[in-house]
Amino acid sequence: MKITIVGMGLMGASMAEGLTREGHRVYGVDRDKDALSYCMEKGIIEKGFVFPEEILGTTELLIMAIYPKGMIKFIEEYRDSFSSGLIVTDICGIKTSFIDEVQRLMPEGTEFVGSHPMAGREKTGAQAGDPEIFTGANFIVTPTEKNSEKAVKIVEEIAKGLSFGKVSRLSPARHDSMIAFTSQLTHAIAVALVNSDKDEDTYSYTGDSYRELTRIAMINEDLWSELFLENKENLIEKIEDFQEKLELLKGALVKGDSEALKEEFKSSTERRKQLKPKVKIGV
Amino acid sequence: MKITIVGMGLMGASMAEGLTREGHRVYGVDRDKDALSYCMEKGIIEKGFVFPEEILGTTELLIMAIYPKGMIKFIEEYRDSFSSGLIVTDICGIKTSFIDEVQRLMPEGTEFVGSHPMAGREKTGAQAGDPEIFTGANFIVTPTEKNSEKAVKIVEEIAKGLSFGKVSRLSPARHDSMIAFTSQLTHAIAVALVNSDKDEDTYSYTGDSYRELTRIAMINEDLWSELFLENKENLIEKIEDFQEKLELLKGALVKGDSEALKEEFKSSTERRKQLKPKVKIGV
Repeated sequence: MKITIVGMGLMGASMAEGLTREGHRVYGVDRDKDALSYCMEKGIIEKGFVFPEEILGTTELLIMAIYPKGMIKFIEEYRDSFSSGLIVTDICGIKTSFIDEVQRLMPEGTEFVGSHPMAGREKTGAQAGDPEIFTGANFIVTPTEKNSEKAVKIVEEIAKGLSFGKVSRLSPARHDSMIAFTSQLTHAIAVALVNSDKDEDTYSYTGDSYRELTRIAMINEDLWSELFLENKENLIEKIEDFQEKLELLKGALVKGDSEALKEEFKSSTERRKQLKPKVKIGV
Repeated sequence: MKITIVGMGLMGASMAEGLTREGHRVYGVDRDKDALSYCMEKGIIEKGFVFPEEILGTTELLIMAIYPKGMIKFIEEYRDSFSSGLIVTDICGIKTSFIDEVQRLMPEGTEFVGSHPMAGREKTGAQAGDPEIFTGANFIVTPTEKNSEKAVKIVEEIAKGLSFGKVSRLSPARHDSMIAFTSQLTHAIAVALVNSDKDEDTYSYTGDSYRELTRIAMINEDLWSELFLENKENLIEKIEDFQEKLELLKGALVKGDSEALKEEFKSSTERRKQLKPKVKIGV
């Protein structure tokens, strides 16, 4: 398949390398010529383009590996160059805020199928790219009534080819609610935890639990402020559910209620046991 | 050195195996004969005892690898069998609530030096034991004015022999405040997060961040309710500091204040970068 990836950052380069290995013909689009040169030298892409119109006319699948806000601009600017039958997908961590608009913008005969590859790394840039980060991770496709079964299947096959573990379909609304809990809330917690530290020497005395809980407090502020705000209703709801449960633990402490604490600990242990280990830890 | 370890659970057995490998003569005490037999068969201890008085008279270092509440009972019951010059240490995650009483109970010529090996595993029992869990982890000693430099040094040497990374000294009060933040608060957060989940299918769609944040939500309810309550003043304070920072993020979301979010993200990123990677990941 002829695949063009817009954005040779961590995710774009990782996908490009994986898809090239799979035997696809992969092209890169980026404003940064150095990123393109790097990807060509390493054999991650066949060729790089600063002007996307040069490659869009023969592209069968277009993967938008850029920030949510940039995507709409890109489609508006280049849709006249899209090949007929083009399938466009993305990697955004939120869907409802833009999917209607994006699907309206797509030319007749082309399709936008939303995707969320649930993998990443704290590092950024093409040179940090590594297709191994996808191995065993979850991949969510968010089709709407505007999508054909055929196009959705093509995107799912791409995910399977990249060695994602579970590939699932969710509506954009369900996806955003889910992701507010599993991703944005967890990042909010890690950030708040690190920022609430009042002791200068904490890092001399930390154990594994603090280290693990706070890894994701190292966060790209431009990307994540956008993700948080684009999904704010869902995220506020999830934060409030969490605050309620934390307050319950604090209340049990204040009262010295050992039984109430044990109940909460038993419940969390039971629930967390349901989460199966990943096929292989990628990150 | 002749070392007796009380409690052949995960921590006791892991320490026993490490110390045996180091060339010490290590004995185990437990009410559970099967645990003792297992440890003897595997060469983790030289011999096991159900009746501690049989070995205490020739023991030079006694490690109490049992719950905080059991420790005082044990010392009251067996202190008459302690060898002269015996050094006793422990593995408890809290110190101020019992250290004064324990030090008062110690016979003339013996010493109790508090220790907190900051390592563990979700599994329990001797068969889950593995001295590798200590490699590179932090170890805190909590001496008081009742301790001799010589006794404190012996405990520190034991920790270094077990391959702990950083071995530090803290007062019991400072230790408990620190640990309320790095350990008990992180566990409270993980428990509250898992328990606040209202979606049945969450686990089909989780990424690495949720997985890492919630590993410690699998928690031994008896041990941890004790740890929480014994350190409740410190823990309540740390929960409230955290609640304040989380509320700040929620407030920025409600107002749509992108700049305030970015400030918090930049701050957490800067702070978390100070935490150096572990020498080697043990767990």
